[in-house]
Amino acid sequence: MIRKTYDNYREILLYTIAAAFIGMIVGMIDTVFGRVLLQISEIRDNHVMKLVPFLPVAGIAIMLLYRKYSKESLKGMTLVFEAGHGERERIPKMLIPLVMVSTWITHLFGGSAGREGVAVQIGAAVTHTVGRHMKLYKNPRTLVVIGMAAGFAGLFQTPLAATFFAMEVLVAGSLLYEALLPALAASFAASYTSHFLGLEKFSIAVTDTLDPSAASVGKLIVLGIAFGITGGIFAHLLGSSKKFFAKIFSDPVKRIFVMGCGLAIVLLVLHVGRYCGLGTNLIHAGFSGEKIYAYDWILKSALTILTLSAGFQGGEVTPLFSIGSSLGIVLAHLLGMPPVLIASLGYAAVFGSATNTLLAPILIGAEVFGPDNIISFVVVCSIAYVFNGDKTIYGSQKKFNYFESIQDN
Amino acid sequence: MIRKTYDNYREILLYTIAAAFIGMIVGMIDTVFGRVLLQISEIRDNHVMKLVPFLPVAGIAIMLLYRKYSKESLKGMTLVFEAGHGERERIPKMLIPLVMVSTWITHLFGGSAGREGVAVQIGAAVTHTVGRHMKLYKNPRTLVVIGMAAGFAGLFQTPLAATFFAMEVLVAGSLLYEALLPALAASFAASYTSHFLGLEKFSIAVTDTLDPSAASVGKLIVLGIAFGITGGIFAHLLGSSKKFFAKIFSDPVKRIFVMGCGLAIVLLVLHVGRYCGLGTNLIHAGFSGEKIYAYDWILKSALTILTLSAGFQGGEVTPLFSIGSSLGIVLAHLLGMPPVLIASLGYAAVFGSATNTLLAPILIGAEVFGPDNIISFVVVCSIAYVFNGDKTIYGSQKKFNYFESIQDN
Repeated sequence: MIRKTYDNYREILLYTIAAAFIGMIVGMIDTVFGRVLLQISEIRDNHVMKLVPFLPVAGIAIMLLYRKYSKESLKGMTLVFEAGHGERERIPKMLIPLVMVSTWITHLFGGSAGREGVAVQIGAAVTHTVGRHMKLYKNPRTLVVIGMAAGFAGLFQTPLAATFFAMEVLVAGSLLYEALLPALAASFAASYTSHFLGLEKFSIAVTDTLDPSAASVGKLIVLGIAFGITGGIFAHLLGSSKKFFAKIFSDPVKRIFVMGCGLAIVLLVLHVGRYCGLGTNLIHAGFSGEKIYAYDWILKSALTILTLSAGFQGGEVTPLFSIGSSLGIVLAHLLGMPPVLIASLGYAAVFGSATNTLLAPILIGAEVFGPDNIISFVVVCSIAYVFNGDKTIYGSQKKFNYFESIQDN
Repeated sequence: MIRKTYDNYREILLYTIAAAFIGMIVGMIDTVFGRVLLQISEIRDNHVMKLVPFLPVAGIAIMLLYRKYSKESLKGMTLVFEAGHGERERIPKMLIPLVMVSTWITHLFGGSAGREGVAVQIGAAVTHTVGRHMKLYKNPRTLVVIGMAAGFAGLFQTPLAATFFAMEVLVAGSLLYEALLPALAASFAASYTSHFLGLEKFSIAVTDTLDPSAASVGKLIVLGIAFGITGGIFAHLLGSSKKFFAKIFSDPVKRIFVMGCGLAIVLLVLHVGRYCGLGTNLIHAGFSGEKIYAYDWILKSALTILTLSAGFQGGEVTPLFSIGSSLGIVLAHLLGMPPVLIASLGYAAVFGSATNTLLAPILIGAEVFGPDNIISFVVVCSIAYVFNGDKTIYGSQKKFNYFESIQDN
């Protein structure tokens, strides 16, 4: 027995060391992707009127790229989930350059989208490919978790949130503990690497705290419900909208062009590009006390859903952060609570409820805003998790309930 | 669909409110149990030489009590797990007074044992009974989780750790999310109630922090492995020892008497009662810089295992806290690290690895020692969790791996 335990421990350590190396590679690619993206976003912000009108043309370019090099890669995150569920042998390598370039194009011309989708796809594709070549892992699904964690961690530099996000997102209700140590190692390696290479981390030390009165608890419950419903509705509408527009325009090139025309107009008309890109402008405005309109979170939600339904690339997470923090500012004023703290709770909880994850948003709270308010994060994110109507932005996420699975009595 | 979602939300809220009431009841019983236990422990500390020699006789009294009123209740925690797995309809009500009184007796006469076993059994028994009468829950297993959470929370006043402990302990590798909100409500209610009624909470604001250097990370890995192996060995030896002595002495009365004789002698010979009771003396000594012997954690482990194998009552968690913090002090000196911080990591991580839980010890870290070092807690507890050799002190804990369960390819 001791022999077996020893072998088991040795294996875990080997995997963990290998994962750290893979994490470094992923961190490097994340850095290239992330730094160029920030540059591009700045260029767009400075030339909104010149660039956004070309959004529909940019859309056509994206679709032609995918069509030429790897049509399959258009499935994006779904490929990652399928590999994670063991339903797919390989993730096409061509996915990596395609998703990077098409996301840059999306952001340069003002689409409202995220970036973590790219990072997670890069991480999963690299790890799945490298790991299979090394024949290192008995279970290729563990590789996907490690890769997702590394990709997320390299981009956001939140290694703990990244690890638990990857462990819980594939199957809601189940944590893939087997991957825990390698995923942690990959995440820390990716995070240190991208930090070392100069990718900036978004973090704010929230100094407000809540007194533990019954009134505060009551307000936290209201916030949790509001954030949960918001994330749930976002996920629900994103799914319906994707289906709806896919039915209306069966040709993806036509879809992205027509919707791109509409989006370009709306994005320019509404505060000249305020809702273009990642939404970091809204996050920044919220946390620095600048103007947040009461409808910012609604418009950012709608435009992100439409951008992604059109076929533009990127992801949802950074827009979700901005939606949550903008809504938090509004609710803080309504409830008479400290705006920065509530914005930070919204930032985490809307992300959690839209992705149907619980531990990841709590750890985002600790890693982005400092650990002082961890108890408020646990309370709000738990309630949001329960009140998201069991929706998720990831169509291929599986759901699992242990007790239903053993329904023998 | 909206109708269904609304009904679902209403149900969750109703359950949550009911759980809060049950939590208050459990908090009250916890207070009575906990305050009397602390009184008894003080009396014993002041009269060690007069009380400990009667440990074997006290043991006989415990066994006769169980034999007279409810022999089945001797199974203790196993009953709770069986109810949690849906393998048992009822938890005997007689369990509550029996386990309280026999734990008081164990501690009065110097047995080395815990107290959370009692609290968790009280919580589960009360909730299971009340809930079934109210016909409130479709799934009686949810009731057990709520009850365990309330019991743990009322005793230690760590509502978040209690909630996740109850959600993850029944089935390693699976979280019963359904119970999340009611368990949180019950835990907060139990915790506030026992606090209001004057049960003291153990907490220490740890002010040390670690610099994020590679050396620190390396040391944290060593600590995680050490704490994990310690908890795993504790769990393994407890199981083997229980079986071994049950085979040697098939009559429980004889077993508790003979082992009680040996224990009384050893407990007095070794530093006159230093290893009697909960082990809070060791915790206190460790955190206040008083003397901790390098062998304290070994002797406390051995004597707790023997006390519980003999048939005395209480539980394992507080001794595990003391074992972990004492070992932490020793390792801190060896590795040149801040003793109080490392003691706090050991406090949490040895508890986690022996109970095969991950989120509970991390939250114990945040709730008992303040949230500043949450990242160190996540790292050390994760490693400890992986390196516990998959052992657990709960013989009836089930293990579950989602990907093995769907082994279709």
